[in-house]
Amino acid sequence: MSIENSNFKAWMSEVQAQMETTLSSVLPSSTHLPERLHDAMRYSVLDGGKRVRPLLAFAAGAVVDAPIERLQYAGCAVELIHAYSLVHDDMPAMDNDVLRRGKPTVHVAYGEATALLAGDALQTAAFEVLSNRILADHAQDQLQMIRILANASGSLGMCGGQGIDLYSVGQELTLPQLEMMHILKTGALIRASVLLGSYCGTQLAAEQREALDHYAKCIGLAFQVVDDILDCEADSATLGKTAGKDAANNKPTYVALLGMKGAKEKAAELKASALASLAPFGEKANMLNALAGYIVDRKY
Amino acid sequence: MSIENSNFKAWMSEVQAQMETTLSSVLPSSTHLPERLHDAMRYSVLDGGKRVRPLLAFAAGAVVDAPIERLQYAGCAVELIHAYSLVHDDMPAMDNDVLRRGKPTVHVAYGEATALLAGDALQTAAFEVLSNRILADHAQDQLQMIRILANASGSLGMCGGQGIDLYSVGQELTLPQLEMMHILKTGALIRASVLLGSYCGTQLAAEQREALDHYAKCIGLAFQVVDDILDCEADSATLGKTAGKDAANNKPTYVALLGMKGAKEKAAELKASALASLAPFGEKANMLNALAGYIVDRKY
Repeated sequence: MSIENSNFKAWMSEVQAQMETTLSSVLPSSTHLPERLHDAMRYSVLDGGKRVRPLLAFAAGAVVDAPIERLQYAGCAVELIHAYSLVHDDMPAMDNDVLRRGKPTVHVAYGEATALLAGDALQTAAFEVLSNRILADHAQDQLQMIRILANASGSLGMCGGQGIDLYSVGQELTLPQLEMMHILKTGALIRASVLLGSYCGTQLAAEQREALDHYAKCIGLAFQVVDDILDCEADSATLGKTAGKDAANNKPTYVALLGMKGAKEKAAELKASALASLAPFGEKANMLNALAGYIVDRKY
Repeated sequence: MSIENSNFKAWMSEVQAQMETTLSSVLPSSTHLPERLHDAMRYSVLDGGKRVRPLLAFAAGAVVDAPIERLQYAGCAVELIHAYSLVHDDMPAMDNDVLRRGKPTVHVAYGEATALLAGDALQTAAFEVLSNRILADHAQDQLQMIRILANASGSLGMCGGQGIDLYSVGQELTLPQLEMMHILKTGALIRASVLLGSYCGTQLAAEQREALDHYAKCIGLAFQVVDDILDCEADSATLGKTAGKDAANNKPTYVALLGMKGAKEKAAELKASALASLAPFGEKANMLNALAGYIVDRKY
């Protein structure tokens, strides 16, 4: 168990380092016109973040023996979408947050206009990365990857979840409503990360793809439940962002709805269900397995 | 000439009507959660706009005998990118404009947070439309269409042009710098519109594609020169947006740099150069030909 854990940590560091290099290579240099925009894009993406979504793409890619280079770009695409959503979500019109990954948020550092454009251009960059080079054995599969990312990111996915979140401030949500919101806001992109990785290698049977998808859905929801728990328990210095904001903003959370004990039970159940669906893949799913633990048991 | 002109007008109305139907069909209903976001998306896209970019895609599609349905979706993609850029560009952090197509801008009608999300989701919808169904004979060509749209929209295309525009307020630009800004800000997406249409049908030889591309570059630049002329000469009621804003904001324009006479000569030269490159296509380029006149000779 301790050897497995150290393998996992080494793998994670290796993927994180590769992602830093690849993200840096796909983003235009800060010396490229308009310099300030490119500087803000790099500031928001590089040198920070746990890269959970690329890690999921890599781990799913291991199941289908996907070439590392393809996974690097698939990982870039999901991370760029994630980064754009954070830049816009932090803006004064939305969460008005000043701290992210321990640094001033983009609109604080570069102004609102640049933050708006940087978020816009990061989203475009995600689709550019997915279309600029061969990432799947068949062009048809690569189109499917783009379709998956677009579906997961738009108004019926992540962006729609942010809208529901926005309009629910101060409202009493039921558990199904809260789940619906998080399935869109956080879950959709996490699910896309796993699926994108799974298209980079050998073909999967329909029921195998479904098993991976079930894993991804559980992990996506668990991720948000744990976020809510940490938002209550941790302090800002540990989180690298402002803690306790959701409660202060009267936003509905799992902890508010289920209590701390109930929220922790929920996270554990989701993890167990995710792990169960990995059984058919044997050792090839080791990293997906370890990531489930990492996501649910993290402290920040 | 008068018959040709009435043919062109009928064609234009027909395409505009088809685009209204197709755009409405690809945007989620206002009754779909989150309702306010979808309502804002539909408000910003439907029932307005000249649909210049879709018209260019259709006209280029005529050159390659492209199926109408493919052109409708290709037209949607470029129009959705255009719509998202207007929503974000109008926001207080950018141009702070309150009037667009004769209606209150999205952030005035729905608030800044919804305007931010609506713009984000419209961009995603563009890539969703390009990946959701078959739009080219080969999947490889469809990937190329997505690549073209992403390249044209991102920080080295339209969004980069908006950044250069933003950072140039109050600065003295040279003619090459002004041209660079507009080639990115307006020209890149107009060019993409023509190219996307050209991928929906039969294969073009490289030199034919280049001829279309030359047409598109000239028209893209001419479009902006004419915009600057109209911004000086027309009033707000005719334009459907606030007139004289660029001069008031001390933004560099072709009229400021070349004088009104020089700007009009420039537009005429660009039109002539665009038309010259259509010669090899004969009658199949009739609508591209007419559109050049429509864009350069328009009064609003």
